[in-house]
Amino acid sequence: MAKLVRFGVSLDQDLLDKFDRLVREKNYSCRSEAFRDLMRQELVQKQWHEGKEVAGAITLIYDHHKRELVNKLMDIQHDFGGLIISSQHVHLDHSNCLEIIAFKGSPKEAQRLADSLTSVKGVKHGTLSMTTTGKDM
Amino acid sequence: MAKLVRFGVSLDQDLLDKFDRLVREKNYSCRSEAFRDLMRQELVQKQWHEGKEVAGAITLIYDHHKRELVNKLMDIQHDFGGLIISSQHVHLDHSNCLEIIAFKGSPKEAQRLADSLTSVKGVKHGTLSMTTTGKDM
Amino acid sequence: MAKLVRFGVSLDQDLLDKFDRLVREKNYSCRSEAFRDLMRQELVQKQWHEGKEVAGAITLIYDHHKRELVNKLMDIQHDFGGLIISSQHVHLDHSNCLEIIAFKGSPKEAQRLADSLTSVKGVKHGTLSMTTTGKDM
Amino acid sequence: MAKLVRFGVSLDQDLLDKFDRLVREKNYSCRSEAFRDLMRQELVQKQWHEGKEVAGAITLIYDHHKRELVNKLMDIQHDFGGLIISSQHVHLDHSNCLEIIAFKGSPKEAQRLADSLTSVKGVKHGTLSMTTTGKDM
Repeated sequence: MAKLVRFGVSLDQDLLDKFDRLVREKNYSCRSEAFRDLMRQELVQKQWHEGKEVAGAITLIYDHHKRELVNKLMDIQHDFGGLIISSQHVHLDHSNCLEIIAFKGSPKEAQRLADSLTSVKGVKHGTLSMTTTGKDM
Repeated sequence: MAKLVRFGVSLDQDLLDKFDRLVREKNYSCRSEAFRDLMRQELVQKQWHEGKEVAGAITLIYDHHKRELVNKLMDIQHDFGGLIISSQHVHLDHSNCLEIIAFKGSPKEAQRLADSLTSVKGVKHGTLSMTTTGKDM
Repeated sequence: MAKLVRFGVSLDQDLLDKFDRLVREKNYSCRSEAFRDLMRQELVQKQWHEGKEVAGAITLIYDHHKRELVNKLMDIQHDFGGLIISSQHVHLDHSNCLEIIAFKGSPKEAQRLADSLTSVKGVKHGTLSMTTTGKDM
Repeated sequence: MAKLVRFGVSLDQDLLDKFDRLVREKNYSCRSEAFRDLMRQELVQKQWHEGKEVAGAITLIYDHHKRELVNKLMDIQHDFGGLIISSQHVHLDHSNCLEIIAFKGSPKEAQRLADSLTSVKGVKHGTLSMTTTGKDM
């Protein structure tokens, strides 16, 4: 069990008011929980910048009727076999697919995979969610 | 089949050089494909701001040993049953879980779901990937 | 809360011994729990035979290098858009894919989907898991 | 590219007629494709009996309001971390969940995992799909 510490933060009343409004809007039980999230967000970014092992998800939107596109996306994924854990496929409508690829590995490889997939001609939109493996967090 | 148009863009040589380097780094087959992606990215943001039907993914990292946390996350997800399509669960190690929730619906509801999940005490990190249903894109 | 009832079952000692060994092997906490599972298994089969709304999963094993196969599988899935909830894709190795399709709907449609997918030339193996939506169980 | 061979099968006209009707019902393009599937089905069963590396999926139906159940299922899954690849979770309605667990590993371990999960008190129904990794098939 981690030891709980407490410290003070000095800041402008106006900034605190705005922040507290956000804390309520975002359903946080208290201000400290919101601060902890901000700090962890910074730590996750640090893991990505320093090349630590990270985790995340890539989303892709595409029309599955474009045959070459579908095959290209699958080839790229098999080339990154060590990085990718599994993917989830949702048929949004008769044409559009949402594919979500879960991965764990080096930030550089993850970025390269996301770039390779998103830049395939016909991919309508792609995002890269950068998160953590949860270790040391 | 959409009609192909061509237009000119005036800009600084230096900016173009930097952009072209990025285009190569990101594996784009040509500069126009990279521009199309930037434009679509803007359109996706517009869909989110205007409250159109959108799609996306929420990632959560947490320790499954925290019982109340696990139950709380599942309750929230069942409360947003109409929004959530399915979720993918990866056991990163003996303690840490990566959960990826695919959704389709209103941006406001999606943001509210992401906030509700991320603010649960014990969630180490959460992200919200904002993408599109692919319609009108 | 459901009312608990208790009733007797007459049977051969030898059959009971064999069954109890199975109960232990399968980690059941007690014999009654094992009986409840057997009874529910019968009820699930009844739901499938009577055309009630059911749920389940289809697994497919195939080589993603076979282009026409991949496209065919995706077309079929989009044709059964109302039945399929989402699918999970695992890259088993550089060639082989495991795809798991979650569905909810009529048993007849589910069987038709499973048959359509499994019979595509190049699918190495397919299974259909027949389960329930959990209602009235 | 595998060499194509052809061989004859002697059988009763009546049996052939019944089988051909099934071939048409199941959407097979030709009788040989149906035979290949039957043969592969036997080979998959052989892999399971001989303890070769196999793949598959476990489906579980349960009410997520039963807290202990949810936690128990997650603990078991983390104990079989090496076997499980990922799982897919569908919220069927406000109470009922469909969870589909993809795995790769030894048949014995897979059976043990399926038994452990299905025998948890409160699991309404469980199935085990036995398929193959696609190697040597």
